[in-house]
Amino acid sequence: MAANTIGKIFQLHSFGESHARAIGGIIEGFPSGFELDMELVKTEIERRKTNQGDFSSKRKEQDKLHILSGIFDNKTLGTPIAFYVENNDAISKDYDKIKDIYRPSHADFTWQEKYGIRDYRGGGRSSARETLSRVIAGAMAKQFLMKNGINITAWVSQIGESVWKSESIPNKEIIEKSKFRCPDAETEKQIQNNIDNAIAEGDTLGGIIKCNISGMPTGLGEPVFDKLNAVLAHAMMSINAVKGFEFGSGFDAARMKGSDHNDEFFVDGNKVKTKTNNSGGIQGGISNGMDINMRIAFKPIASISKEQNTINNKGESLKVKIKGRHDVCVVPRAVPIVEAMAAMVIMDFYLLQKINE
Amino acid sequence: MAANTIGKIFQLHSFGESHARAIGGIIEGFPSGFELDMELVKTEIERRKTNQGDFSSKRKEQDKLHILSGIFDNKTLGTPIAFYVENNDAISKDYDKIKDIYRPSHADFTWQEKYGIRDYRGGGRSSARETLSRVIAGAMAKQFLMKNGINITAWVSQIGESVWKSESIPNKEIIEKSKFRCPDAETEKQIQNNIDNAIAEGDTLGGIIKCNISGMPTGLGEPVFDKLNAVLAHAMMSINAVKGFEFGSGFDAARMKGSDHNDEFFVDGNKVKTKTNNSGGIQGGISNGMDINMRIAFKPIASISKEQNTINNKGESLKVKIKGRHDVCVVPRAVPIVEAMAAMVIMDFYLLQKINE
Amino acid sequence: MAANTIGKIFQLHSFGESHARAIGGIIEGFPSGFELDMELVKTEIERRKTNQGDFSSKRKEQDKLHILSGIFDNKTLGTPIAFYVENNDAISKDYDKIKDIYRPSHADFTWQEKYGIRDYRGGGRSSARETLSRVIAGAMAKQFLMKNGINITAWVSQIGESVWKSESIPNKEIIEKSKFRCPDAETEKQIQNNIDNAIAEGDTLGGIIKCNISGMPTGLGEPVFDKLNAVLAHAMMSINAVKGFEFGSGFDAARMKGSDHNDEFFVDGNKVKTKTNNSGGIQGGISNGMDINMRIAFKPIASISKEQNTINNKGESLKVKIKGRHDVCVVPRAVPIVEAMAAMVIMDFYLLQKINE
Amino acid sequence: MAANTIGKIFQLHSFGESHARAIGGIIEGFPSGFELDMELVKTEIERRKTNQGDFSSKRKEQDKLHILSGIFDNKTLGTPIAFYVENNDAISKDYDKIKDIYRPSHADFTWQEKYGIRDYRGGGRSSARETLSRVIAGAMAKQFLMKNGINITAWVSQIGESVWKSESIPNKEIIEKSKFRCPDAETEKQIQNNIDNAIAEGDTLGGIIKCNISGMPTGLGEPVFDKLNAVLAHAMMSINAVKGFEFGSGFDAARMKGSDHNDEFFVDGNKVKTKTNNSGGIQGGISNGMDINMRIAFKPIASISKEQNTINNKGESLKVKIKGRHDVCVVPRAVPIVEAMAAMVIMDFYLLQKINE
Repeated sequence: MAANTIGKIFQLHSFGESHARAIGGIIEGFPSGFELDMELVKTEIERRKTNQGDFSSKRKEQDKLHILSGIFDNKTLGTPIAFYVENNDAISKDYDKIKDIYRPSHADFTWQEKYGIRDYRGGGRSSARETLSRVIAGAMAKQFLMKNGINITAWVSQIGESVWKSESIPNKEIIEKSKFRCPDAETEKQIQNNIDNAIAEGDTLGGIIKCNISGMPTGLGEPVFDKLNAVLAHAMMSINAVKGFEFGSGFDAARMKGSDHNDEFFVDGNKVKTKTNNSGGIQGGISNGMDINMRIAFKPIASISKEQNTINNKGESLKVKIKGRHDVCVVPRAVPIVEAMAAMVIMDFYLLQKINE
Repeated sequence: MAANTIGKIFQLHSFGESHARAIGGIIEGFPSGFELDMELVKTEIERRKTNQGDFSSKRKEQDKLHILSGIFDNKTLGTPIAFYVENNDAISKDYDKIKDIYRPSHADFTWQEKYGIRDYRGGGRSSARETLSRVIAGAMAKQFLMKNGINITAWVSQIGESVWKSESIPNKEIIEKSKFRCPDAETEKQIQNNIDNAIAEGDTLGGIIKCNISGMPTGLGEPVFDKLNAVLAHAMMSINAVKGFEFGSGFDAARMKGSDHNDEFFVDGNKVKTKTNNSGGIQGGISNGMDINMRIAFKPIASISKEQNTINNKGESLKVKIKGRHDVCVVPRAVPIVEAMAAMVIMDFYLLQKINE
Repeated sequence: MAANTIGKIFQLHSFGESHARAIGGIIEGFPSGFELDMELVKTEIERRKTNQGDFSSKRKEQDKLHILSGIFDNKTLGTPIAFYVENNDAISKDYDKIKDIYRPSHADFTWQEKYGIRDYRGGGRSSARETLSRVIAGAMAKQFLMKNGINITAWVSQIGESVWKSESIPNKEIIEKSKFRCPDAETEKQIQNNIDNAIAEGDTLGGIIKCNISGMPTGLGEPVFDKLNAVLAHAMMSINAVKGFEFGSGFDAARMKGSDHNDEFFVDGNKVKTKTNNSGGIQGGISNGMDINMRIAFKPIASISKEQNTINNKGESLKVKIKGRHDVCVVPRAVPIVEAMAAMVIMDFYLLQKINE
Repeated sequence: MAANTIGKIFQLHSFGESHARAIGGIIEGFPSGFELDMELVKTEIERRKTNQGDFSSKRKEQDKLHILSGIFDNKTLGTPIAFYVENNDAISKDYDKIKDIYRPSHADFTWQEKYGIRDYRGGGRSSARETLSRVIAGAMAKQFLMKNGINITAWVSQIGESVWKSESIPNKEIIEKSKFRCPDAETEKQIQNNIDNAIAEGDTLGGIIKCNISGMPTGLGEPVFDKLNAVLAHAMMSINAVKGFEFGSGFDAARMKGSDHNDEFFVDGNKVKTKTNNSGGIQGGISNGMDINMRIAFKPIASISKEQNTINNKGESLKVKIKGRHDVCVVPRAVPIVEAMAAMVIMDFYLLQKINE
């Protein structure tokens, strides 16, 4: 049922387990004749990598990209673009001890229940390493969107208790200079404190990513079921560890009155705009040309080194301490993943809307 | 691109504008030989109806259900079940005055941009009247799920500033006795106050619906892109006026530590359970057998009778006061819609999982 | 799994059993702002009707078309167009006697095996009455194609032993004047003879329909799996009683040499053409701008009044003579069905190709 | 629009151009826990290879299979199975001279029209080398089917003028012993004669493949649009060079009377059978448990070394003689491709039918 496919026109078919030979995918529906810059794809791969600092996994991923098809003389052919990245620093023996154990809040138990079998090494297909395919496909989608004037920017607005409350859209360069992709010096310091404590305690932290899409054309989104916001929510909620999604006014809307929430229209030059943007750039499921704004909540990852109670596959109670090279907080590394998902969704709707033209 | 279709195996193909001859749909993939109770479907139609009290639209919807196919001797045939409900109290002339006006935070502007044409009467296809099809299809899905031990319960936990903070799962009968589908006497009083004020001011209110699914089997959900939570988010975010979705710990997870968030496994009789349920019944995108818990945020509806600034389709500025028979707060009426969407999603994954058996 | 849906962008979701309350469908993906001529739709409904002469069923279908949504001020809205036709001359009691009998070469046995239940009246969903939905949707697609310069013409080239061997493309008016939709006086006479004999014997006849599509743009078709010829074959083979499909040189190609079969290119004005058209207008699965030519083979329908051996649902042997108002030969009535299927396929690919522009 | 994907539950996502780095695909929906025999997959790759004799291309394909994911401890995980085969004997310079030429009856012109760009080397994605992915996926599907008692056998019944008219189902071993996969000594001799003449003339030959599927369960096929015969036709017509498809009585049905064509039911032991099998194992689009029989017509391939008239991409007339290592007749090599397509279709419907159980 194509559970490993996302998109309708622009599609990513994804494959790969954490310790299989490779992670990769096929991109279908990329328009022909487009000159792809592979250096930009590599940059995105770098942004997602582990081993970025004290808070991220020590796994050293080479992550060399192999393109197998779909590109000729540096241009897309309109045929499927197949790619893969080898899993060459996978240390499988780390996982032998826990192959029969259902780690708390991991996918061990549910995958076993669903399929009756699982690749327990590194979490198998349930590992966030799978998101590498998304970042690669998203990096290509981003280039297409940029050429059409659409820009996607995500950043960390919260890790644990530390929150950057500003509503401003930070500059991409400033975000990337920040170790935590949180472009506020004060919040960064607090985050570092949180991280230090979490490391000391063998614990992990969650957080929130904000995402802004500017340069949006009007008319993207396919009501009634494939509203732009609904498909964005689907895409974001498919990222590992995501627990919540909101756009525009989000959960705050529940407390607002219609007269406060409504975005009044006006004309600025040739462009229809709204004075406020509680709609988050989407009305009736269709883009209105204003910026799209989203917030995505991540739980703390489940791999903690503190001792926990759990069971094994025979239903026996036991205690487990999870070893391995796990992240303390994945939120900074999830920034390019959020951007990639946004890029794939927007590109797909952009191409779909060509049918209405 | 099937933007009016939801589901993979169990599908609803939806149709209808607010003032078209009818609203309806085709249900495909309902298993054959199932005895449907049409009285239960009518009950759900009643629950969604307008004219339920001072807070809801005065439109008097007869909402008589017509079944055209797919059922023989009261049993499903395994063929498409087509149905419709006539729009017999549609007062189209209410809308003549605003046919060229883009009402703030309505879908007028975006639909016009997308399609170059729209049925402006009653909001056309962007009207929440469209959700009637969902409630009908959902009412059939609910019966299938109930027969398989799965129960869905939704209720209002917040309207405007009034919040019922309890984490308990209320009884269905108690919810239905509440005018606002909020089963707490104290909160109800506060809500009534809010509603009274909003009516007096010509304003509208948003709110939050909680939804619980019990009796879940393990193994439902299709990673990596069609995780159960991702498809539930998609379904809920496709409901008019929804701005946010969270499950389990939701946005609160961002502040939690892994050691607080992790749900420890234990065995209770033959059943694997978790001590806490921050996972909201879903781990790695697959149901773990615990209850699914979701929260869905609704914005206040856009049709307020207060004067607002806006533009018309020539880009001219003007002031508008919206008349017609609009709801003050749709959240209580959205409870059966949330349940219907949950039912369709769970039934679809239930049938999909049969392939793995 | 959407087995009652055809198409990707332009879609028909079909519903209805022969003796259910109605036959109908939802058309999704019809571009917005198109002015549909309902008289042309009615003409196609007439062309498909029973009771056209001595060879067709005596069932008198009123076949009044009801449109429920999707059209406003005579124009398409870009929203789903729902329609139905009532089954008001269905005589169900004809079928009571055979409800437990598996008629030879009917779908009784296989539908019972698949679904464990069936509506035995008039063949239920397996009846060719279902094709009425196709003809209605196809009639709308035809109008879109005609406006874009594409014309579809089908006719009868063979009934039983009587074959019209000409390779010429007959005029639509001449086809419609022919009782058998076979535009050759000599062949018509032979066919009448065949029909007379079949009626006398209580037997039925098969035949062949040819279909020509002119005015084709280049570039339609989606390799590698959705080649234009592959999807046309799928569509035609989904019509009741179809046993074979070929395009261009078809089965004759097996005997030809490459040097005879190859279609040499030349330029005629601004247009690239081929000297011969063994390719049938399709090369590598994509239209080359030449006419598309297809041949579709129909078996004789299974409802004969001669006595036959068969079994019932208990596996008991018995003899059956099939009564009811059955066609002697459906092939002339299938001409508008073939055209409808061709129209839906071509329109779908036409819209898909807009994404590449 | 997933034009490179086939199937609903069991899916192949295919990729690769003839001279790209690789040809391959992702198999999605293969049930978990199945032990795949890679030697059997290699056998099928061998059967499809070039360089099998005087009639086939001299391209020496190593065709070493690389599996990247989806299999763990020799068992399927229920996750995507990604695979590829390198194109290591691709001689691209053969094609430099013809990069601007539209070869008669090739896909050069239509692909250029559709995409505005093409990989002209070896036919790019329009090359039959693409079918290697199908054979690999089909080889896995075959193993699943065999384990469930379903067997697929295809053979050559005609090449050029030489026809083996027998209706018997030959033994697989005997087919494979035949150089032309035509298990009749007399016909083989005639074929060899035809081939010799074609080689001498620089010409090519078409032919017909028959395919039999035995051990079929009842109930496979999804009316009304995805009838088993319709999807089989779609699959077969998507193979390069196929011009016609028929099942059961096929085109001959057009001449038959209902009383001759109808297949009478009887009970043999516990199994319902039919005395004749004009239905080709499919009634009303659903399998009836009898053998499925199909015939597929192939045109002679377009690459002939005789001089032909054509044009280039500027519309200029010119003469062309096609060099390179082309097949004289692909029909024997297409036998495993036909089997692979049949296997994928049947496996997909087999899994779909589990939902009805």
